[in-house]
Amino acid sequence: MTMKPEWTSAAVSPVNLEMRDQAMAYQDQLTKPQGSLGQLERIAVQFSALQGRLKPELERVSITVFAADHGVADEGVSAFPQAVTAEMVRNFSRGGAAICVLARQIGASFEVVNLGTVAVLEPLPSVLDRRIAPATANLCVTAAMTQDQLTQALAAGFEAAERAQQQGAQLFIGGEMGIANTTSATALAAAILERPVIELSGPGTGVDASGVLHKVEVIERALELHRQALKDPAAVLRCLGGFEIAALVGAFIRCAQRGIPVLVDGFITTAAALIACRINPGVRTWLLFSHNSAEPGHRAMQHALEAETVLDLGMRLGEGSGAAVAVPLLRSACVLQAEMSTFADAAVSDQGLNV
Amino acid sequence: MTMKPEWTSAAVSPVNLEMRDQAMAYQDQLTKPQGSLGQLERIAVQFSALQGRLKPELERVSITVFAADHGVADEGVSAFPQAVTAEMVRNFSRGGAAICVLARQIGASFEVVNLGTVAVLEPLPSVLDRRIAPATANLCVTAAMTQDQLTQALAAGFEAAERAQQQGAQLFIGGEMGIANTTSATALAAAILERPVIELSGPGTGVDASGVLHKVEVIERALELHRQALKDPAAVLRCLGGFEIAALVGAFIRCAQRGIPVLVDGFITTAAALIACRINPGVRTWLLFSHNSAEPGHRAMQHALEAETVLDLGMRLGEGSGAAVAVPLLRSACVLQAEMSTFADAAVSDQGLNV
Repeated sequence: MTMKPEWTSAAVSPVNLEMRDQAMAYQDQLTKPQGSLGQLERIAVQFSALQGRLKPELERVSITVFAADHGVADEGVSAFPQAVTAEMVRNFSRGGAAICVLARQIGASFEVVNLGTVAVLEPLPSVLDRRIAPATANLCVTAAMTQDQLTQALAAGFEAAERAQQQGAQLFIGGEMGIANTTSATALAAAILERPVIELSGPGTGVDASGVLHKVEVIERALELHRQALKDPAAVLRCLGGFEIAALVGAFIRCAQRGIPVLVDGFITTAAALIACRINPGVRTWLLFSHNSAEPGHRAMQHALEAETVLDLGMRLGEGSGAAVAVPLLRSACVLQAEMSTFADAAVSDQGLNV
Repeated sequence: MTMKPEWTSAAVSPVNLEMRDQAMAYQDQLTKPQGSLGQLERIAVQFSALQGRLKPELERVSITVFAADHGVADEGVSAFPQAVTAEMVRNFSRGGAAICVLARQIGASFEVVNLGTVAVLEPLPSVLDRRIAPATANLCVTAAMTQDQLTQALAAGFEAAERAQQQGAQLFIGGEMGIANTTSATALAAAILERPVIELSGPGTGVDASGVLHKVEVIERALELHRQALKDPAAVLRCLGGFEIAALVGAFIRCAQRGIPVLVDGFITTAAALIACRINPGVRTWLLFSHNSAEPGHRAMQHALEAETVLDLGMRLGEGSGAAVAVPLLRSACVLQAEMSTFADAAVSDQGLNV
């Protein structure tokens, strides 16, 4: 049996529904045809409700990338060698990865948490060493994590949310890096959604069609192996997850408890969001969704979460990159509601002729 | 017969195809799975070709909103009274309109060109007075513009592009404001695309279903009236266009001649882009497209232009707002290509295992 730490079930921060209604009414007073800002209106109203203010602000964004290796990489499910996880942690530290470039563009704080890379890394700027083990166990052979490892990984996410809170973050983005983690995330999705693995599986970072079929076979074997154990979301996470995915789950839950909106990235982070919401359903209120990834299982998870996204650019990189790219759109939404004139202020006629 | 000014046919600035190929190859050296940045890769490569540099820059953006009234407003085709055009010019000047808020967010230069509002406006900050007439003529009754008016409106666009050039603009956004201008733009689209008016017509700023049918009837009457005259794109523009639409056409053509990429906004500006490309086909190379508006005719014009957009947010405001919202995405594309490490720089393994 899998135990979830007690803190994961604590109530999430309340949302201001009165402010939501006030913001909806206010949108119709701004100098534009009603509804003409489309989804940006919905987003601004959501930030009003989350922040409890009519004129929402979105300046301070905190990005944490969680990195870890996966035992299931032994099954040959990724297009890249396992060494890439640690190599990319160095690349994050030096600022050369996509997420680093985007973090600079949007002025976000950026850190990496290493939860367990096979290669031992020297101390690196912007990288926190929280190594739990060199990698998870191979989920085809045994549970990916022990109970204690799961607890540690969730706690690493909790701590990242606490740091974001201390930075005064108005938005949290969790990214991930871990060779073979689309296999883990697909297994999580299949277990939670009870959907056939083949419907949820895609090329990840770039395996070909036979590689996808191999991944499906590996995941089906894992689901069969753990069938009896997969009784609740924490058990699913322990048996099939990764350290970085569990840390994302912990971070998302803690952000919701702390009242920090979370912008969910792509396939892997959506799997973490799904688990977080199954562990603590209140978390959903604090989640926003950024983009549709190219990975086919993403849509199914988004549907289960009733997720509305703002971007569909065919991105499939991870690292939190799709979420970072979407931040300026959320800022546009907030700043429009905060700074546009009303019809009354601007002496613009708002009487439709209804012809 | 309608004459187009000679300058409109001059060759556009050449594009660097060698740099495009170099940029495509460079994208595959960056520390990410090939193709994993989706559309952002295509956009960065396009900027490399347009700017002739491997590491494209997108700092300086110039926005010009062209405003004018339409005689066809007499037919009761808009949900808003005609006075709103001038009222919104004042709102632009004071910085309270959506496009002003977005221009500040993205650090763009911003100006308004008044080509003819029914209400006479006092001198206003950020507003250039280029009034050609109080409004176009009612296109249901006669040609919207005289030859001389068309020439003046195109020249106003030419001048805006020249100002952008002097500012060192790396991107030009043309916006528009003009009560009843979806009627004019729909008429232009129907004439150029030779498609049934009913397929291209929508609610504009917010007329109801019977309002849409009325608009269709008005446009069909206009097309019938001008049938013999609609022999070339300049004639279509003169008979059915608006001053602000003709100015957009002039601006887009001149930007292409000056080598300034243009980011096309929504329905009205796409009609202008379509006319600009029919007058001078080379213009197409310098156009980028921002978003899908909610107006049904937009897709048909985009299809004719082979336009690929990055946003689909259900926006239908005009003013250049959809383009302004998309600017940070183009910046993300450029900055990723310019600043990401290569596999060689970062010592990251790029050998796919092809399992």
